[in-house]
Amino acid sequence: MDALRVNLKGRTYDIFVGADLLRQCGKMIGRLELGRRVGLVTHPALAETHGYAPAVVVSLREAGYEVSLVTVPPGEESKSLDRAARLCSELVRVGLDRGSAILALGGGVVGDLAGFVAATLFRGIAFINLPTTLLAQVDSSVGGKTGVNLPEGKNLVGTFYQPRLVLADVLTLKTLSEREFRSGLAEVVKHAMIADAELFALLEREASRILARDPDLLQTIVAKNCAIKIRVVERDEREAGLRAILNFGHTVGHAVEAALGYGVVTHGEAVAYGMLVAARLSVRRGVCPPRDATRLEALLRCFGLVPGYLPSPELLEKYLVRDKKMRDGVLQFVLTPGVGSVTLAPVSDRKELREALHDMQA
Amino acid sequence: MDALRVNLKGRTYDIFVGADLLRQCGKMIGRLELGRRVGLVTHPALAETHGYAPAVVVSLREAGYEVSLVTVPPGEESKSLDRAARLCSELVRVGLDRGSAILALGGGVVGDLAGFVAATLFRGIAFINLPTTLLAQVDSSVGGKTGVNLPEGKNLVGTFYQPRLVLADVLTLKTLSEREFRSGLAEVVKHAMIADAELFALLEREASRILARDPDLLQTIVAKNCAIKIRVVERDEREAGLRAILNFGHTVGHAVEAALGYGVVTHGEAVAYGMLVAARLSVRRGVCPPRDATRLEALLRCFGLVPGYLPSPELLEKYLVRDKKMRDGVLQFVLTPGVGSVTLAPVSDRKELREALHDMQA
Repeated sequence: MDALRVNLKGRTYDIFVGADLLRQCGKMIGRLELGRRVGLVTHPALAETHGYAPAVVVSLREAGYEVSLVTVPPGEESKSLDRAARLCSELVRVGLDRGSAILALGGGVVGDLAGFVAATLFRGIAFINLPTTLLAQVDSSVGGKTGVNLPEGKNLVGTFYQPRLVLADVLTLKTLSEREFRSGLAEVVKHAMIADAELFALLEREASRILARDPDLLQTIVAKNCAIKIRVVERDEREAGLRAILNFGHTVGHAVEAALGYGVVTHGEAVAYGMLVAARLSVRRGVCPPRDATRLEALLRCFGLVPGYLPSPELLEKYLVRDKKMRDGVLQFVLTPGVGSVTLAPVSDRKELREALHDMQA
Repeated sequence: MDALRVNLKGRTYDIFVGADLLRQCGKMIGRLELGRRVGLVTHPALAETHGYAPAVVVSLREAGYEVSLVTVPPGEESKSLDRAARLCSELVRVGLDRGSAILALGGGVVGDLAGFVAATLFRGIAFINLPTTLLAQVDSSVGGKTGVNLPEGKNLVGTFYQPRLVLADVLTLKTLSEREFRSGLAEVVKHAMIADAELFALLEREASRILARDPDLLQTIVAKNCAIKIRVVERDEREAGLRAILNFGHTVGHAVEAALGYGVVTHGEAVAYGMLVAARLSVRRGVCPPRDATRLEALLRCFGLVPGYLPSPELLEKYLVRDKKMRDGVLQFVLTPGVGSVTLAPVSDRKELREALHDMQA
């Protein structure tokens, strides 16, 4: 088991990465000294098919907790204020109060939604995250971003709210669909790309063992990824500056998802495409050697992350100008000077952006 | 004009109390160095009848801001996650971004709703409050509580989110309905009761000038009330302990509102009733001299705040046990040892509570 500590003033918490953590969660949560009532938010599939939710419930009950299980349908549609409202009502009706905790068991959708509910129900109660997808383990479970979507765009409503504990059980990655697993690899590539050239080389070297989901290797990779994200978040919790580098590939990625409708391409494919656009822009500006853009593209191809179907550059542009990272008409872009590093750059020239998007069609 | 500073680590802001501040708001907001876009959230009546919103819009435009006016219907029904979702969508569509600000112009409903939207839209943007009711000026605009209701109860969903600036223009109190104005006086009495025996005596002495809405006297009273609330909030921003004293009268008050349906009695009448129950409990426990409970009741009667219609003790009890301040089955109550002071006391004996509620029927 790897233990990582996230140090934020007054809200320090631990992330544990390892095998079979779900069965030990009751004991581990017991150390936090919370109230006895727990609302466990998960997907029906995790409750019924894989047996993860029952394992968590048993472990919690053995540790003396009163657990209420609440399920939400899978898919981005569940990340809405309407769903948040229904979840809040349900949790109040089963008896949660200010001293209770909300546990999220699932991927990014469950974590973002349940985190938002924990951040706002009774003006904030304890939140514990048990991420079960690669994407959630390496990305959304670290950093305290919670959020729901609006019809106008993804994650437009949310809070910064730190969990009290994160348990990333790598055994749950075994049951992910191939597409979901590969989608998570996009964020792994992103972290390596922005901050860790050695990790990038490891991914290139061990690509096939990674795709075979070797558990020891996955534990190493998840822990390394969490460590990268923790370093960034500790220095910039509320995305005032540095934290924006984590958006590498996401500005265009979010626009791809919004333009196609959520679920047509995976989040990972959308982000992979966004990273390629960012690399293309970086090469165009002369800040990135073409060789590094090629390595990025090759690794993403190897992980099956280059999407086959894409919106037109014109449609993408329309969604890009709505990006929440835009300030007074200037789009904040994350570019790369090469593998292992990034740089923030405003893009105010619509023509430059349009040309980079058109490049990608070639 | 009275200027009060609220000192919270990293989020210090000013509250100005005075006459005709709305017309100067553009200049005053200009000092905050925000983006140029502003979403002004208000009620149709404030936009159309009283001319407050046009005054604010003109002042903002003269100061160089691009203002979008968005109205929400009056009444507690607007404090819902559904309304928050629609408001967020509307503000995104009119072009607000992360650097923009949201201004609330109105009473507690507009302030709580717009504050919640500001706290969560783009994970938090600048919030400025222009409270126009006595209740909002002395209470809800100070302390950073935002919130919406659930079908299960009031303010069950929300955040702690501090405004960047509060401008309390006492001239707006002139156009309040008699019922609304008196409702605000309940919080004024509460503040005096929990923290300021001298203010309590002033209220007793000057009751008729207060009811005649003498503007200089109102400015003094609003400023004194803000000062009391600031002292409490500075010492306990997130309601870990001390801040709970502000809930004097609110535990039962919220239950009254929830049981009758919002709007049947005013918030002030509900809180007044709650204070009387709390005083009764305090006398029963022998911690409060009967004379102080009598003074409280007399002042509330003088301000026309003793409600004529009330739910049955049995129904009230049902709503009380859902209170969000309840932890593991024990209701946190705020009792009073006499005018000018309060004490926190758990009430775990249902019989004691039931008897105090029945006392009130006599």
